[in-house]
Amino acid sequence: MIVASILNIGDELLIGQVVDTNSVYIAQQLNNIGVGIVEKMAVGDKLDVIIRGLTICSDQANVIIITGGLGPTSDDITKPALCNFFNTTLTTHQPTLLHLKHLFENVYKKIMPPINNNQALVPDCAEVLFNEIGTAPGLAFYKNEKYYFALPGVPEEMKYLMNNHVIPKIIKLSSHQKIHHKTLLTFGIGESSLATTLTDFEKELPHNISLAYLPELLSVRLRLTAQGTKANIENELEEQFKKIQLPIKKYIIATKDTTLVEVIQELLEQKNITVSIAESCTGGNVSALLTKRAGISKVFKGSIVCYHNELKKNLLGVSSAILETYGPVSKETVSIMAQEIRQRTHTDYGLAISGIMGPTGSTAQTLVGTVWIAISNAVQTDAYCHHLQFTRDKNIYISSLLAINHLREFILQ
Amino acid sequence: MIVASILNIGDELLIGQVVDTNSVYIAQQLNNIGVGIVEKMAVGDKLDVIIRGLTICSDQANVIIITGGLGPTSDDITKPALCNFFNTTLTTHQPTLLHLKHLFENVYKKIMPPINNNQALVPDCAEVLFNEIGTAPGLAFYKNEKYYFALPGVPEEMKYLMNNHVIPKIIKLSSHQKIHHKTLLTFGIGESSLATTLTDFEKELPHNISLAYLPELLSVRLRLTAQGTKANIENELEEQFKKIQLPIKKYIIATKDTTLVEVIQELLEQKNITVSIAESCTGGNVSALLTKRAGISKVFKGSIVCYHNELKKNLLGVSSAILETYGPVSKETVSIMAQEIRQRTHTDYGLAISGIMGPTGSTAQTLVGTVWIAISNAVQTDAYCHHLQFTRDKNIYISSLLAINHLREFILQ
Repeated sequence: MIVASILNIGDELLIGQVVDTNSVYIAQQLNNIGVGIVEKMAVGDKLDVIIRGLTICSDQANVIIITGGLGPTSDDITKPALCNFFNTTLTTHQPTLLHLKHLFENVYKKIMPPINNNQALVPDCAEVLFNEIGTAPGLAFYKNEKYYFALPGVPEEMKYLMNNHVIPKIIKLSSHQKIHHKTLLTFGIGESSLATTLTDFEKELPHNISLAYLPELLSVRLRLTAQGTKANIENELEEQFKKIQLPIKKYIIATKDTTLVEVIQELLEQKNITVSIAESCTGGNVSALLTKRAGISKVFKGSIVCYHNELKKNLLGVSSAILETYGPVSKETVSIMAQEIRQRTHTDYGLAISGIMGPTGSTAQTLVGTVWIAISNAVQTDAYCHHLQFTRDKNIYISSLLAINHLREFILQ
Repeated sequence: MIVASILNIGDELLIGQVVDTNSVYIAQQLNNIGVGIVEKMAVGDKLDVIIRGLTICSDQANVIIITGGLGPTSDDITKPALCNFFNTTLTTHQPTLLHLKHLFENVYKKIMPPINNNQALVPDCAEVLFNEIGTAPGLAFYKNEKYYFALPGVPEEMKYLMNNHVIPKIIKLSSHQKIHHKTLLTFGIGESSLATTLTDFEKELPHNISLAYLPELLSVRLRLTAQGTKANIENELEEQFKKIQLPIKKYIIATKDTTLVEVIQELLEQKNITVSIAESCTGGNVSALLTKRAGISKVFKGSIVCYHNELKKNLLGVSSAILETYGPVSKETVSIMAQEIRQRTHTDYGLAISGIMGPTGSTAQTLVGTVWIAISNAVQTDAYCHHLQFTRDKNIYISSLLAINHLREFILQ
């Protein structure tokens, strides 16, 4: 059985300067071919800590993926560390040297700085993984029945070498084990309530299938993972995936790895529905969440962000009488906002939201955290009220998700 | 001397499902108080690998920060692992139990599932770090002259506990040392150009003062940190803080630790200026960035998100002739949008933005990545064009920041 570990090398990883997305990509690619990762580690650009990292990462795994520190400058010391670890020395790899000269002459169109000669130096016992798209070659080592792959930290070059060299080599090593995932997305139920509901299901899960709870704000992603060598492993997983849905049916909004915003986009497209939004308290955040999605313009026309009450009157025609009688955060006001935005933008559905997100702003009528949401189509207008007690940021984000989910439920009614 | 390591716990970190931003935040906070990180490690939700991780992370560090696996469900096994590691057992922490009951009763407004009782169980030898904003308490341990802090993996709870409990405790451990920071914020210059410009400054820096570059999108935060036991350390720092500003004056937008959005809010308030926005390609994101700030309603009235061209006509009065002759992404269209939003909402300044954020959507006239921004007041309208070549998300975010910065520069003209 193949088990991998990842060792990332670079001071920038330890001072909070970069977010490590390389190891995420590597983990995804390995998972896709059924290889699990037992641990990952990040260390700085120092000889002794790199060697320590190599030793630790070799302990539990038989495939070790190393990234970073293969550049030409003096802080790049992964190769000396590998030489020390494998008890070997550096030697010039002629095809790499020719490739470097070609790159500088024909692609970068400048004279190669002498320092780049370093990049053609490779540990004597390494197999070179030829890097067509960059200057740092990848390196493969085999020692004590373990495979080591050292890749540059530049994301595109790392990805290129993973796809073209590392993954094909690992597939050859591992053709018997399989890992499969099935994911579903819930909305409106907390992690612990889900877990309580699924106690019996979890107890009866076969030992080769595991369940993970991945909570986000208002949503929980449930992931079933099956691994083993059984031929019918996919059918077994499919059976459990059907079973898990039964007790939590009403909270499930998708049976794949997706997001609430993707779900609403697909629903609107599938039903050929257009929508527009009148946003007060969320200040444009609901619209911004939708427009993050490419192609949303097919179903989302636009919004009026009527943050100030004056704009609720001028741009949406909410009367002073309504605002004074019921207040800007009320069923009456959001209902008119939803109707008006729909009519003024000629869409099928109007969504409106108004609330007080805090930290201050309570009025005699309305406490901080109150939010009203309305949805209107040609036939009816429904309104919903929530009371939130989080920070301003979180109140805004949760209100936005609640609004999108009410729209989803209203459409599915 | 204090040296830290970070241990992240969770299967999701090893299958490429989440990007680990927690350890980035922790590293930044520790760096801010002058504590370096020697290594970080991620392991899955299994007893033996967590214990192995604790052992490895304790080896080189005397402060160990652990995140994840403190939830109530059966895959959360950090507490059993800590009990095993510290040779202790779980016991109920009454204040946490009361807090849980209060949260469910008064904030979540539902009956607490029995499973959440687990979250009040803490290892007997732990000091509880009270988590006001969530259900999982933080835990502190002291063993063999090393400090261990276990925090929940939910980012905002982790941040809350870091800021309110962990950092103050670590500062106390290192209190003979004084650490002072002075921060400034630049806009529109890259990290490497800044570093080139500041080469001489860096060479001449006294050895007890260090300079950190903290790059974000379009902004770089420059932080000078002075540490040591000298009495006049603050004056020394002040002197260097004046000196660093000279060669980069024109890029500095603030001489404190702040953000572009805070800077614009302060400027608008100070000059008593109101603003409204017409957003096309950013889809509400500029407005949402502003409305994240409490109190912004004093200066920001609202927006029209005219994502669909029809809304540019109906809601903003951009004529079909203009849209057809110049296109929706043009100087002419954004200039009219800026003038119209200002007039229709009765504000002092109108800001407008229209572009093509990709990944597709190039027209004969306009390539993907083109964005026009206009600002208008009673006297004049200025327009600016940018060409971006990033992902959709990043194009939207960068366009929003550029728009806010143009507004800032226009006001300061």
